[in-house]
Amino acid sequence: MTPLRPIRKVGFIGLGIMGSSMAGHVQAAGYELHVFNRTRAKADELVARGAVWHDRPGELAAACDAVISIVGMPDDVEALYLGADGLIARAAPGTVLADMTTSSPSLAMRIAAAGVERGVPVLDAPVSGGDVGARNARLSIMVGGEETAFAHLAPVFAAMGDNILRQGGPGAGQHTKMANQIAIACNMMAVCESLSYAARAGLDPRAVLKSIGTGAAASFALSVLGPRMLDGDFAPGFYVRHFIKDMGIALAEAEHMGLDLPGLAQAKRLYDTLAAAGHADDGTQALFRLYAGL
Amino acid sequence: MTPLRPIRKVGFIGLGIMGSSMAGHVQAAGYELHVFNRTRAKADELVARGAVWHDRPGELAAACDAVISIVGMPDDVEALYLGADGLIARAAPGTVLADMTTSSPSLAMRIAAAGVERGVPVLDAPVSGGDVGARNARLSIMVGGEETAFAHLAPVFAAMGDNILRQGGPGAGQHTKMANQIAIACNMMAVCESLSYAARAGLDPRAVLKSIGTGAAASFALSVLGPRMLDGDFAPGFYVRHFIKDMGIALAEAEHMGLDLPGLAQAKRLYDTLAAAGHADDGTQALFRLYAGL
Repeated sequence: MTPLRPIRKVGFIGLGIMGSSMAGHVQAAGYELHVFNRTRAKADELVARGAVWHDRPGELAAACDAVISIVGMPDDVEALYLGADGLIARAAPGTVLADMTTSSPSLAMRIAAAGVERGVPVLDAPVSGGDVGARNARLSIMVGGEETAFAHLAPVFAAMGDNILRQGGPGAGQHTKMANQIAIACNMMAVCESLSYAARAGLDPRAVLKSIGTGAAASFALSVLGPRMLDGDFAPGFYVRHFIKDMGIALAEAEHMGLDLPGLAQAKRLYDTLAAAGHADDGTQALFRLYAGL
Repeated sequence: MTPLRPIRKVGFIGLGIMGSSMAGHVQAAGYELHVFNRTRAKADELVARGAVWHDRPGELAAACDAVISIVGMPDDVEALYLGADGLIARAAPGTVLADMTTSSPSLAMRIAAAGVERGVPVLDAPVSGGDVGARNARLSIMVGGEETAFAHLAPVFAAMGDNILRQGGPGAGQHTKMANQIAIACNMMAVCESLSYAARAGLDPRAVLKSIGTGAAASFALSVLGPRMLDGDFAPGFYVRHFIKDMGIALAEAEHMGLDLPGLAQAKRLYDTLAAAGHADDGTQALFRLYAGL
């Protein structure tokens, strides 16, 4: 096996809401940070603090000991890793790569296999915890991939999260994140249907939350997103369109496994309706619009 | 308005798993306890501690200052309260009645209206918190009905619960409980689908719970019932058949309101399938059987 490069220079690709916080923590942990982002302006603050800008992802990969990405859609991930000027083609053997985008488990397996051929281990390492978790370095990081590479990159993950678990081989991180999204998807219906029922029955839904928020119906979604629904606050913590992407991946994987997920399918149909009505850039709690006619 | 009777003698009807604990707390709080139950043997322990047995609910009602019931199905509630020898016919004016069965909001309203005519206020006061909550006097009690009657009976409720809220007029307690059951129903699908996906993907679902159990997917069902599902422990905390009753009531009420609850309808269909397969007396976590083929 190709020996892994000691990690001093860490590349970071994708400086959105999540990525910019995460990259900042890596930099603060003492690594030499290298950055690339489609919109360069989003790198300004990190560059001002000493990060090295690269014009192309391949060039960044060639200059680093480890590279982390958190970008948009599976197609973006595929191009970034498997393209002719992509990370796997350009990284030196022994460089560890980790994609923290929520993306397809099958794609993660293909990318990891391509990496093996070039002596470039690739981990899939999606996160949960949202913008707040990213800002406070309190993310849950779900990792799939080769164990030695995971151990090697663990100190970098530790700069960003506090619940870091390797769940298995390539794709296991993405599968774990899918399990997370599946649990959230049906529960969003649960919260919307509960609160819209309460409102329609003439109750005060905020008082109802006090009765039901701490027992067997208790959930993060009920206690954190429920009040936002009732306030008509649909500002995005997590975008409807990203959630639809995730549910689509999970349903495709489940179908591939021969597993029927009727709850998830129902939730996806509702979110598709919500997006078609022009609310793709709302937060996921905007599902309440469909029930409340908002 | 008929003056309410000072509460010294409290009748308790329905000494199942929940009721026997609850009645014991009322007795321990210093009230003179009167009891009736379909199966007399279940009253033995309370009678040994000084409770007064009655052969008929109507006779019990005539002897008490307040009466509490927690029985099986809405039909049982209807017969108990509205029958010729029922509680409303036999209670002295000024007696406060409270039905703590999870039952139909519409029926609760009919019963309360019948009570008004006889000067017998009836509260609907279903609970959540399960057998453990009942045993530890930590129930959430969701009350609907007239405010003065609620205030009058509040010390008795306080012997059984620690989250006691009047949610509105007659039926509001039952509506609140329905909101609770709706939130649970869809979330049970969420947990089953998440964990069955994880297992089918080749992950260790217990490790997955460690990654996803504390973030945006977090819920009581995921962290408390998820492990039981994985252990194949389907022993009843709450019976499938009772849950199906509750979902049926909620769907009927929602239809009456013109409110479409597709997630709840989907959950109900799955539980109906589970019951038809012979698992009506399992606990609600047995929904996992359908997904895992157990």
